[in-house]
Amino acid sequence: MVDNLISSAQNPKIKKILSLQQKSSERRKEGLFIVEGQRELQHCINAGFEIDTIFFCPSILEGYDTEGVVMSLLPEVRNFEVTVDVYNKIAYRGGTEGVVAEVKVKKPALSSLALKENPLIVVLESVEKPGNLGAILRSADAAAADAVIVCDPLTDLYNPNLIRSSIGAIFSVPCVACSSEECIAFLKSKDIRILTAQLQDSELYYDTDMKCGTAIVMGTEATGLTDAWRKAADAHIRIPMLGKLDSLNVSVSAAILLFEAVRQRN
Amino acid sequence: MVDNLISSAQNPKIKKILSLQQKSSERRKEGLFIVEGQRELQHCINAGFEIDTIFFCPSILEGYDTEGVVMSLLPEVRNFEVTVDVYNKIAYRGGTEGVVAEVKVKKPALSSLALKENPLIVVLESVEKPGNLGAILRSADAAAADAVIVCDPLTDLYNPNLIRSSIGAIFSVPCVACSSEECIAFLKSKDIRILTAQLQDSELYYDTDMKCGTAIVMGTEATGLTDAWRKAADAHIRIPMLGKLDSLNVSVSAAILLFEAVRQRN
Repeated sequence: MVDNLISSAQNPKIKKILSLQQKSSERRKEGLFIVEGQRELQHCINAGFEIDTIFFCPSILEGYDTEGVVMSLLPEVRNFEVTVDVYNKIAYRGGTEGVVAEVKVKKPALSSLALKENPLIVVLESVEKPGNLGAILRSADAAAADAVIVCDPLTDLYNPNLIRSSIGAIFSVPCVACSSEECIAFLKSKDIRILTAQLQDSELYYDTDMKCGTAIVMGTEATGLTDAWRKAADAHIRIPMLGKLDSLNVSVSAAILLFEAVRQRN
Repeated sequence: MVDNLISSAQNPKIKKILSLQQKSSERRKEGLFIVEGQRELQHCINAGFEIDTIFFCPSILEGYDTEGVVMSLLPEVRNFEVTVDVYNKIAYRGGTEGVVAEVKVKKPALSSLALKENPLIVVLESVEKPGNLGAILRSADAAAADAVIVCDPLTDLYNPNLIRSSIGAIFSVPCVACSSEECIAFLKSKDIRILTAQLQDSELYYDTDMKCGTAIVMGTEATGLTDAWRKAADAHIRIPMLGKLDSLNVSVSAAILLFEAVRQRN
């Protein structure tokens, strides 16, 4: 075990972790991303992701790894013990649980999505903020959505803020990145109704049938959806804005629409 | 105007702004809070708040104050011109619009709330994160809720993160802080149904009538509601959790419940 002890933050392996946390280009190049904390690592393993390397700090891990999940993993993957100082350097979040892992990126294709009958899908065009995407994944998990499809994304799916704000839903909800064109063709081929969230020429969301196969499509808060989506839509839907302000946060809107589908389907 | 020019970040007035941004104790002591940006200042004035002092940076303001709102205010309140360097020091958010104001705190009482027939109220017990409270205010504005009541708050209502995340809804939605005891007595006296969001002994939220006067009551994500609220409840309601995770963000839950009330009432 002593051979594997890292006690300096200047160690190239530590620098690599920081770089994977900070740079999407590095995540793309290496095909790796960072998962932090025992609970999230558990979600990640359950979802069939492959762990590449584990960095753990025994004195911190001890209080958390009550079921021995991390300890039982160690013989199977490359692992390094790190000192408390080094751990605090690589722990992106405060108060995490003594374990940081490098995990292999998966790039699921649209064609690999397993959809149930009358699927419920969220489509996000050009979503900018990783925190919003994470929050939407969390709501999609709660609503048992079949997938979240991110079209022409401006963030990668393994941004640490996304992973953090999804509290593990990035692992439980199938999430695919593709172009808007591919996504529209896919939805049409599966007879899934395309409902675009937009104000113009729209009906109230609760007057719209969401019991059949449904894709809820949302654009950015700033610029909305592109014409390709507006034209592909089977219906335009809006959430009524009854107050003084003119918009809701995109993750809040997604949750309201997803749970209207849940209500109608139950 | 030159008499009123502040060019040093060491100026006591500048230090006071920073202190009002950072410390709730300072806000309490001075009875002042900070509003930043022209749009928010406009919301704040429309809502009848009293501006104490304005700090503006002409070269930044110029591009934003197209309707001359800030300029028209200047003769009426104490105002100070600041240099770009000083402005960048006091601008809490990035890219704001050349104006920061000290505004007098209002402390509306429960008894001062103007409620419409069959009011819709959100009650938050011990909400911790200012960003969550801001997001809930934004949804409450959109749903035309009558008020947000914060019981035994752990944050003050004029935290800059709250103001920022509410994008002005802190000014458009009446927001009262009080004890849980006072709030329960108030709701009972007005015959407003108390619906507590909790898992135990609960019905699905969409099976619950929200057309009559309704208070949606939510606790913290970590510990939920106290017994006082559970006992005071007319019904316990839950959002079904159909996925792998066991909770939604409190601001997302509040939005789902508020818009179910909107749906039922329309």
